[in-house]
Amino acid sequence: MRHLIDPLDFSRAETDRLLSLAEDIIGSPADYTHRCDGRILATLFYEPSTRTRLSFESAMMRLGGKVLGFASAESSSASKGESVADTIRMISGYADIAAMRHFKEGAPYVASRYARIPVINAGDGGHQHPTQTLTDLLTIRRKKGKISGVTIGLCGDLKFGRTVHSLIKSLVRYEDVKFIFISPEELHVPGYIVEEVVKPSGHFYREVRAMEEVMPELDILYMTRVQRERFFNEEDYVRLKDSYILTPEKLSLGKKDLAVMHPLPRVNEIAAEVDEDPRAVYFEQARNGVFVRMALILALLGLESDVLEKGE
Amino acid sequence: MRHLIDPLDFSRAETDRLLSLAEDIIGSPADYTHRCDGRILATLFYEPSTRTRLSFESAMMRLGGKVLGFASAESSSASKGESVADTIRMISGYADIAAMRHFKEGAPYVASRYARIPVINAGDGGHQHPTQTLTDLLTIRRKKGKISGVTIGLCGDLKFGRTVHSLIKSLVRYEDVKFIFISPEELHVPGYIVEEVVKPSGHFYREVRAMEEVMPELDILYMTRVQRERFFNEEDYVRLKDSYILTPEKLSLGKKDLAVMHPLPRVNEIAAEVDEDPRAVYFEQARNGVFVRMALILALLGLESDVLEKGE
Amino acid sequence: MRHLIDPLDFSRAETDRLLSLAEDIIGSPADYTHRCDGRILATLFYEPSTRTRLSFESAMMRLGGKVLGFASAESSSASKGESVADTIRMISGYADIAAMRHFKEGAPYVASRYARIPVINAGDGGHQHPTQTLTDLLTIRRKKGKISGVTIGLCGDLKFGRTVHSLIKSLVRYEDVKFIFISPEELHVPGYIVEEVVKPSGHFYREVRAMEEVMPELDILYMTRVQRERFFNEEDYVRLKDSYILTPEKLSLGKKDLAVMHPLPRVNEIAAEVDEDPRAVYFEQARNGVFVRMALILALLGLESDVLEKGE
Repeated sequence: MRHLIDPLDFSRAETDRLLSLAEDIIGSPADYTHRCDGRILATLFYEPSTRTRLSFESAMMRLGGKVLGFASAESSSASKGESVADTIRMISGYADIAAMRHFKEGAPYVASRYARIPVINAGDGGHQHPTQTLTDLLTIRRKKGKISGVTIGLCGDLKFGRTVHSLIKSLVRYEDVKFIFISPEELHVPGYIVEEVVKPSGHFYREVRAMEEVMPELDILYMTRVQRERFFNEEDYVRLKDSYILTPEKLSLGKKDLAVMHPLPRVNEIAAEVDEDPRAVYFEQARNGVFVRMALILALLGLESDVLEKGE
Repeated sequence: MRHLIDPLDFSRAETDRLLSLAEDIIGSPADYTHRCDGRILATLFYEPSTRTRLSFESAMMRLGGKVLGFASAESSSASKGESVADTIRMISGYADIAAMRHFKEGAPYVASRYARIPVINAGDGGHQHPTQTLTDLLTIRRKKGKISGVTIGLCGDLKFGRTVHSLIKSLVRYEDVKFIFISPEELHVPGYIVEEVVKPSGHFYREVRAMEEVMPELDILYMTRVQRERFFNEEDYVRLKDSYILTPEKLSLGKKDLAVMHPLPRVNEIAAEVDEDPRAVYFEQARNGVFVRMALILALLGLESDVLEKGE
Repeated sequence: MRHLIDPLDFSRAETDRLLSLAEDIIGSPADYTHRCDGRILATLFYEPSTRTRLSFESAMMRLGGKVLGFASAESSSASKGESVADTIRMISGYADIAAMRHFKEGAPYVASRYARIPVINAGDGGHQHPTQTLTDLLTIRRKKGKISGVTIGLCGDLKFGRTVHSLIKSLVRYEDVKFIFISPEELHVPGYIVEEVVKPSGHFYREVRAMEEVMPELDILYMTRVQRERFFNEEDYVRLKDSYILTPEKLSLGKKDLAVMHPLPRVNEIAAEVDEDPRAVYFEQARNGVFVRMALILALLGLESDVLEKGE
């Protein structure tokens, strides 16, 4: 049995086959509407996350399956002091596959060790969020036709943003990716990502402070939130924040086929006027999250036997 | 694409066809059990309302469809500051139709402007609650055979009760409806409803202070809650409240085929003994809410193409 | 129409037929996957209980049915002061069967009096929890081949534990059951259970203070939680608690075919190492809870007509 806890749990070949399956679902959704008839997904959300939870639920329902679970820790047995290990063993009798979000890093991994059903990490603390990474990869592939060869600008909070770190770790497995890190000094990409992930991969990378400098070069602009509370002082925040807000003016510098991505929710880092631009693909990206999760559920349940290698 | 935000969004002809569809569903429920197979309803309840939410969920399930969503704002992305516009664009990728309840007036309207799926207003602040109005109209039609020609007593808090205002606005579109407003002075029907809605319609209306005065005339008695906190002082409340509580004694003055309605939940404004009287139709009215929502979902999804005109 | 409010609402013959149906479902689950197509279960949980709620939901989904409801009182109409009687009459229009958990003893019974659909008590205060009892009986029958003739040790808090009391009341209806009550003095089985239930039944019983004394005699060891707050003083708790924690050492004294049960959630009263022992059947017991609820739903909906006698 396989689980998905870390974005790198799947090999590049497995990931590529999973993305192909997701694209096949997008192309022929009617072929998949009954693939999970009679199957049950448990959504175990110890920490609320409407977007991620509903994306999983929509995925399972689009496959004909059903969903049970909880949306926050308060209404769960967790409040009675039950361990994650016991909960997942109980849930293994109730459902066929589980998606777990937990405020504690490592909780979904612990669950996977005791589960008799496949476990998907739907986000654990500030740690991993592998289905977001798969969603990002699918979006890049669908907009660019391929992942190898793209020039991607990662913009905003590159220090604390886990989605950015996971995406970088996955992208270095492709060929000839160029990374442009766009962030204030205070929120630049951590040293270990540069030293241990990017440099050993041999991929080109560059760090800049403003998106205007690099906009014309980019195939992908991946926006993230810059939170006021990350700054040491208000002055720095006020001085810097405008460089990390995407406006129609800045976007006008971009290529005609640039794709602007964002993991959502966004607050004000992308101006509302940008939404109308065909290069704004973040809502399409959210929709891709449903298709990639459909593919993932099918693969983990063994209903598409040629996607994943046999489990450990 | 059509939405339902205001009870008057549907013309009288559209409303009548929708009620006919609801009656057809009541008569032949088995014909409808698979009409929404594979479809998903999103219930987006920023404000809890068990009754309304479960009524929508039951409606979608009775049609063979599935349901996802949230039951309160705390477990929603709203807590991360996401706008209603962004949420509905995300949800448009997850579901086929949405029912939104929001504490802020106008939120469902904003959602409908950004949605790629039909949006139903399931109540916005003290503003509109159009599916309650449709439920009321269906109940009147089923109990009386028609809506035109009825004499309806509206009793209780006619000042703040939005269901009463919406019902009046819809009823004036029918012929020869007689309105009897039964309320304490403090809670009488607002001037603009009388001046701008009732009078221009040419329909008969009358204001009284006690239901006993008019009981024998009524075809419909529509009860609402009189809340203690609406009164300026406790004395007035104590003095007046009994006039607005329906008891078997008061009911004995009514016609044999009177229909007593209430939008529910009721607290004490209808005595429990009245429940046994066949003229008490409020639980049947609640059940009608499921059928009218089934018809509404079918119409908005275009699965019953002859109910609504083409959208704006 | 029948309801299940008290574990003894079903005769022993009815209970035995229900357990047989559950065993048939375990043996041939595929025969049951569409038995509740188009049916709706309402889970009305005024008090959160993830385990019980999800067990009911899984049961209904495994039968092909759908589920709506609420997981806690906050998001229910209860907060608007609606009575249980009114809520169940509303729900009777929305669903085909209801499972109610309530913090108030007797609430599910009240609901059953006003319902037009079968009502299952999913736990009311410290009072009854009949589906737990059915789950326990099914587990004993599956592990021992029969219920009559077993020697059962009930261990831990026998004073406040409602599951233990209900189980005793059900077990005395079988032949030749031997009861061993294992508890600290402070938490021993209440006098009325011994005097009014066990003694009149003529069954053997014995009270001991430590499980080591009786371990080799037991066919079933039914563990329950010993809560620190039940003790008069900390010293007593520290002195006594170890006698009520099941360890591999204590388990080594047991028979080869002993079955260790626990209603779950457990905190520390069973050491984690015991989980690996094949005699630990508490997770299987949790799974049995789904099968027994599937049988119960079928029986109450009249979809298995030979289980229950005609209703009152």
